[in-house]
Amino acid sequence: MSRFWNKRVHALRPYVPGEQPSRPMVKLNTNESPYPPSPRALAAIRDAADENLRLYPDPEATALRQAIAARHGLGAENVFVGNGSDEVLAHAFRALLQDREPALFADVTYGFYPVYCALYDQPYQVIPLRPDFTLNVEDYVRPSGGIVIANPNAHTGLALPASALETLLEAQRECTVIIDEAYVDFGAQSAVGLIKRFDNLLVVRTLSKSSGLAGLRVGYALGAPGLIEGLNRVKDSFNSYPLSRTSQAGAIAAIEDVPWLQETVRRIAGTRDALAETLARSGFEVLPSRANFLLMRHPGQPAEKLAGDLRARGILVRHLSDTPRLQDWLRVTIGTEEECQVLVEALHEILRDAPEPEDETARDPEPAPDPAHGTASEPPAARTPAP
Amino acid sequence: MSRFWNKRVHALRPYVPGEQPSRPMVKLNTNESPYPPSPRALAAIRDAADENLRLYPDPEATALRQAIAARHGLGAENVFVGNGSDEVLAHAFRALLQDREPALFADVTYGFYPVYCALYDQPYQVIPLRPDFTLNVEDYVRPSGGIVIANPNAHTGLALPASALETLLEAQRECTVIIDEAYVDFGAQSAVGLIKRFDNLLVVRTLSKSSGLAGLRVGYALGAPGLIEGLNRVKDSFNSYPLSRTSQAGAIAAIEDVPWLQETVRRIAGTRDALAETLARSGFEVLPSRANFLLMRHPGQPAEKLAGDLRARGILVRHLSDTPRLQDWLRVTIGTEEECQVLVEALHEILRDAPEPEDETARDPEPAPDPAHGTASEPPAARTPAP
Repeated sequence: MSRFWNKRVHALRPYVPGEQPSRPMVKLNTNESPYPPSPRALAAIRDAADENLRLYPDPEATALRQAIAARHGLGAENVFVGNGSDEVLAHAFRALLQDREPALFADVTYGFYPVYCALYDQPYQVIPLRPDFTLNVEDYVRPSGGIVIANPNAHTGLALPASALETLLEAQRECTVIIDEAYVDFGAQSAVGLIKRFDNLLVVRTLSKSSGLAGLRVGYALGAPGLIEGLNRVKDSFNSYPLSRTSQAGAIAAIEDVPWLQETVRRIAGTRDALAETLARSGFEVLPSRANFLLMRHPGQPAEKLAGDLRARGILVRHLSDTPRLQDWLRVTIGTEEECQVLVEALHEILRDAPEPEDETARDPEPAPDPAHGTASEPPAARTPAP
Repeated sequence: MSRFWNKRVHALRPYVPGEQPSRPMVKLNTNESPYPPSPRALAAIRDAADENLRLYPDPEATALRQAIAARHGLGAENVFVGNGSDEVLAHAFRALLQDREPALFADVTYGFYPVYCALYDQPYQVIPLRPDFTLNVEDYVRPSGGIVIANPNAHTGLALPASALETLLEAQRECTVIIDEAYVDFGAQSAVGLIKRFDNLLVVRTLSKSSGLAGLRVGYALGAPGLIEGLNRVKDSFNSYPLSRTSQAGAIAAIEDVPWLQETVRRIAGTRDALAETLARSGFEVLPSRANFLLMRHPGQPAEKLAGDLRARGILVRHLSDTPRLQDWLRVTIGTEEECQVLVEALHEILRDAPEPEDETARDPEPAPDPAHGTASEPPAARTPAP
């Protein structure tokens, strides 16, 4: 606290990222990739660490924007880049939401959304997911200063089909719709194909998950030129050069190494589906994830205690204590096959040693996911929201 | 333009950075270092481009903050780091200025200050420098939402002694005083020594100038723990990880390579003083700079034409067309000795070919700098503001 703070600073409740442990642990808590990034990306970063670092980077990151545009079949005028998708989202909340109506997003989703709203005095309304954590796009057809949907959703891993987003975009043409596709590469349908039809659609991506470059800090947004221009006006009123020369060089190489990406996400998705099946056989409920993590709970074991027992065995998972509806759940990042094996063995050990709870129903306040929406071992290809 | 922009976006007038040319030029327009960064910094960046890039960086940049603290004889709790001093300044304007009174800064200074104010709805009042471009700290002793002084000043290169800043801080204990020391290493007195006495003093630094790392995007702020905590609250409401692993690693090595820094700034300051003397002998007025650039004008040649003639010869300098009082002036970054020689020869050529102006006084609306404040070839060690 300091008397020199701007009055708004007192009201901020900053986002708290997952722990970055200083000692080696099986780290399944922040949805990083278990595999190193593309060797081409690493080589490009090393090559860029030369005497030209004395010069400012290209403030418009033209070459990177062109590479991203080429991958998605769009033009460079459809691309905005930033220091991780967190910065991209922050600028999008500032530039593209309207404060005359509340912004809308889910009660269980990425925890940074309400934080951005507080930073910018943007009113917002939280829309509860269904009891089974699926999202009903009809709930978002109401007066709104902007809509933000993570797809697949943060924490749950559940995905909406592009057709559901299309339905929403047809109904909501007067406000910005931000689709946060941080996890889309692991098996969900992207909304990028809708950009040419909807000038209010902004799709946000990151290189931190599927590209295995969380440490490089690169994210981007795709949308109509008018949206991109709004983002640029805010960015150029904040920091002309958010991406270093090394980050731009590494990101270009990563974006262009499509075979590496395809192989890596295939591998992680395979590990995910096998782990979900194993956990289900061990008595866990597991949501059918399209992301690089699983949300799970055990009917007999409090989640917070499980997380603590895993931690004592050198395994970090995430108990999202700030999200009321996730108090019984643990979010587990998909590691290597070996790491997942270590996790499963540790869970078996913990469950074997644990006393049976006296009253299971007392530990089960939330209805289980609707089986009609698929099981963990058979993720549905597309999920249509109920009418 | 887009109807989806937040209403505030329409009023933004973004900062326009100096040109980054795509073809090779003698680049004396954005105050970069003419010398490559410390080899230790480059090696550290290359070493950090390894498989650990799959993991998020340390969001608190603890090792980097400790290295910066050690260099300045402060604690890590006195240090905030960000993606270039532009991001650090942006967060400082958000976190540490009060909108009940206008922020105060000079009419001729870093052009990003009013842009930040527009982004955050912060009222501000521009305080004219004296006719000779010196700054009178007494002008800043008035009700204020915060004071921002670049020292040495952007564009002019003129420096205030720490004693003048101390006088100001004694008189202004109730608002934040931000001293932007982007150029301080080239020969001005730092205010860092005053931090322990004044809990409202924030000193902002960058690795883009003296450390020759404009392409890496690292800046920092030093101040009392309360100010640093306010900056962290805003940063953690915006982007948890503004500095990549490679940027953190490179910055640590750069901060620790003090002999490299001392040798480099000695060399640049020497080139600067010699160039100033040469230009003065060639008929230019040159302000006595303590930075890595010179502000100069020629009584017989319009600045904009000179800049164009230089550009035609492959030399980029900066004509600050957005700053009314600098219409007659050019800002020239100190290059290598060879680059400065090329500049001088080009100027001699241009002046030889140019017609004499019909009426010199018409081109000289601004009084010359007060000779009492030193000449270009003999920069004063400290400049006391007139009473």
